[in-house]
Amino acid sequence: MSKQMKLAAYFNPTGHHVASWRHPRAQRDAHVNIEHYVEIARTAERAKFDMIFLADGNATRDADLAAISRSVQFVAHFEPLTLLSALAMVTSRIGLTGTASTTYNEPYALARKFASLDHISHGRAGWNLVTSSQPAEAANFGRDRVANHAERYGRAHEFAEVVQGLWDSWDDDAFVRDTESGLFFEPDRMHYLNHKGAHFKVRGPLNVPRPVQGYPVMVQAGGSDEGRELAAAYAEAIFSPHLNIPEAKAYYDDVKGRMAKYDRDPNHLKILPGISVVVAESDDKAAEDFNRLQSLIHPIVGREILSTMLGGVDLSPYPLDGPLPDFPPTNASRGHFDSIVAMAKRENLTIRQLGERCAGARGKNSIHGGVKKVADYMESWFAANACDGFCVMPPYIPGQHDDFCNLVIPELQKRGLFRKEYEGATLRENLGLPRPVSRYKKR
Amino acid sequence: MSKQMKLAAYFNPTGHHVASWRHPRAQRDAHVNIEHYVEIARTAERAKFDMIFLADGNATRDADLAAISRSVQFVAHFEPLTLLSALAMVTSRIGLTGTASTTYNEPYALARKFASLDHISHGRAGWNLVTSSQPAEAANFGRDRVANHAERYGRAHEFAEVVQGLWDSWDDDAFVRDTESGLFFEPDRMHYLNHKGAHFKVRGPLNVPRPVQGYPVMVQAGGSDEGRELAAAYAEAIFSPHLNIPEAKAYYDDVKGRMAKYDRDPNHLKILPGISVVVAESDDKAAEDFNRLQSLIHPIVGREILSTMLGGVDLSPYPLDGPLPDFPPTNASRGHFDSIVAMAKRENLTIRQLGERCAGARGKNSIHGGVKKVADYMESWFAANACDGFCVMPPYIPGQHDDFCNLVIPELQKRGLFRKEYEGATLRENLGLPRPVSRYKKR
Repeated sequence: MSKQMKLAAYFNPTGHHVASWRHPRAQRDAHVNIEHYVEIARTAERAKFDMIFLADGNATRDADLAAISRSVQFVAHFEPLTLLSALAMVTSRIGLTGTASTTYNEPYALARKFASLDHISHGRAGWNLVTSSQPAEAANFGRDRVANHAERYGRAHEFAEVVQGLWDSWDDDAFVRDTESGLFFEPDRMHYLNHKGAHFKVRGPLNVPRPVQGYPVMVQAGGSDEGRELAAAYAEAIFSPHLNIPEAKAYYDDVKGRMAKYDRDPNHLKILPGISVVVAESDDKAAEDFNRLQSLIHPIVGREILSTMLGGVDLSPYPLDGPLPDFPPTNASRGHFDSIVAMAKRENLTIRQLGERCAGARGKNSIHGGVKKVADYMESWFAANACDGFCVMPPYIPGQHDDFCNLVIPELQKRGLFRKEYEGATLRENLGLPRPVSRYKKR
Repeated sequence: MSKQMKLAAYFNPTGHHVASWRHPRAQRDAHVNIEHYVEIARTAERAKFDMIFLADGNATRDADLAAISRSVQFVAHFEPLTLLSALAMVTSRIGLTGTASTTYNEPYALARKFASLDHISHGRAGWNLVTSSQPAEAANFGRDRVANHAERYGRAHEFAEVVQGLWDSWDDDAFVRDTESGLFFEPDRMHYLNHKGAHFKVRGPLNVPRPVQGYPVMVQAGGSDEGRELAAAYAEAIFSPHLNIPEAKAYYDDVKGRMAKYDRDPNHLKILPGISVVVAESDDKAAEDFNRLQSLIHPIVGREILSTMLGGVDLSPYPLDGPLPDFPPTNASRGHFDSIVAMAKRENLTIRQLGERCAGARGKNSIHGGVKKVADYMESWFAANACDGFCVMPPYIPGQHDDFCNLVIPELQKRGLFRKEYEGATLRENLGLPRPVSRYKKR
């Protein structure tokens, strides 16, 4: 069988598009509607998606209230780990991946929660490891400022190391539960981590048995040099932000090239560029729907989102119909910053146009078209070895999620580019990733 | 209708008794068996329990490995919040209450998770607020020592205040979701907390809408003076540890008496003493089953648990068959310490006997008997106004959980002491608690 794509379904409450909630085929109250999530999770599983993905932040997006009050993105919604645990009970095969910050969590607490989710779901958990860069988040955790990029990534590296160490606390066969002799676990199969590092001092053992998958699947999104290095060291899936094949391929080759130094097989990392798809029966119908969505963006929402994506630069002094001025790189994730600045220059966009573009797909790759156009586009990236699949971000949900599952998935399957049945029982098996051997078994 | 008991079902994985996992009617692998939890949660809901309760700690119990390896209690198991979120999807009426520490969490993170659980479960979440007193927990969170009792309770008070403040971040009617005008929420219905205290600095707003119940139900277990004060200020349910009616009644009257100073109605706090019941068709059969359970306790397990419950005093230098020596109060929860010391003196127990007693029911009230004896006992406490109901701790699960639901519940219902149908849709409604008004609506 030829190589097949891996696909993640990225669920923002009403969809990825900032005006999604105004679309008649979106679920307006999705942010607190559990039945909505049950429905879309089951649809994704029927379509054989590798995993659901939930993004996260630790604050309500902080900007002009006039803009935020017209948005649904990162305002107020379910917390990912509780939501994924709930969804574990109404699905049986699809992976359950969520974001959790290394900046404002403690590794012991986070290791427990993902290990628990992995047991609840029988091996379907994935952790998207991020650092938190928003000042609004710092203000919710008693910090006067956001730690700088290098500090955050230093902590993230050590955090990942501690979490994986804690997941190894119990050997897979530690719990013998021998009612006859009265021995519940073999004492020498329990391990103290005794970690002492620059950021953390953690003894262990974790009070959750070793996850079904050994470790939940490690997901990452870093675009900066530190982010790429962290990904090369730890990531098994990456949600990347690139907008065209050459950029995506350069990133793909660079990150996979860094893996050797960590003794890792490049096949054990799946790079999945984000893509927001409006699909319809024809290219025209899709364009019409996309334009309708764009028309629902409030003028000030675009500028606010652009400003946030650039790391909080204040765009209000500049004319909306003038070009993006030059800025030094900010404390924002470098991948986002560079992509947006490059797009502005390449297409000679004004702040208003760039804002609308970013507000719609929020800086992510966006395509609209009939089934053939969409499938061709996805195939072209995959055939160019610019990716291992995609992180599909439906612009509005459930409408475009349903359409992608009903229209695009069967076409990808027909082309042999996507599975018709799940290969395995765990997320790791479906992604073709090895089950990590415990550090205490590597002799 | 006369006053009725409120009942919580306290689920340790295989049961409350330390040797429970060796009993043939226990589920040995319960600590990682989600199907087990689905089954017992549904059984509890069919029996009309007010709520499920999951205890928690932030470490594997730290003591003699020879003892721990023969136990299942607080070794390695599901994390409560992920588990409760999962159980929300397989139940529809029963409350979902779990422990979370104020010592090693951040209020913003915890407020999110319980608010999310409350939305997922349509208003069935409860938070058992505790402080963490075990050195093993401190060692997992980079601390060299356990904070002292007063420090922990000072932090806990402020923690509760911040969490409730964050739950009020959004007015109940904040999200108008007006597709026509494009307004998702009314800006003046969102509130910054701007809390600055001795322990926390938290700006808000919470990035989860106001919980269905306003606040998830606040549960507490404090026996010390600080614990009682915290309970009087915040608790809506208490799981108390008393072993006889006079002690329970004194506690009941004391805590309810403290509520006036917080402007609270004593009926808005339900005090539920823990009770571990072995029930059978006859008193003799129940005694036989209880003795069987006790016979499964390994000798060194009893001493270790007694030692832990006394706050970590080293009992190994003292003869197993001698009396408990005098100790000054330790850093343990005072309720536990005082109850155990009182029991030892009252019944003139040796360390071995006391250890066995504590290891079995772990210092909690324990009764075995036929249906009439058990129901009479529960009724006597309730009639004496020593409690508002009970926190029922099945010694082994599912066996004794099933038996309690099948034998005792119908008898309590027949006596008019327990509901036959849920009164409301939310945990708060079933417990007869008011829905808190937002601080921003109190004018």
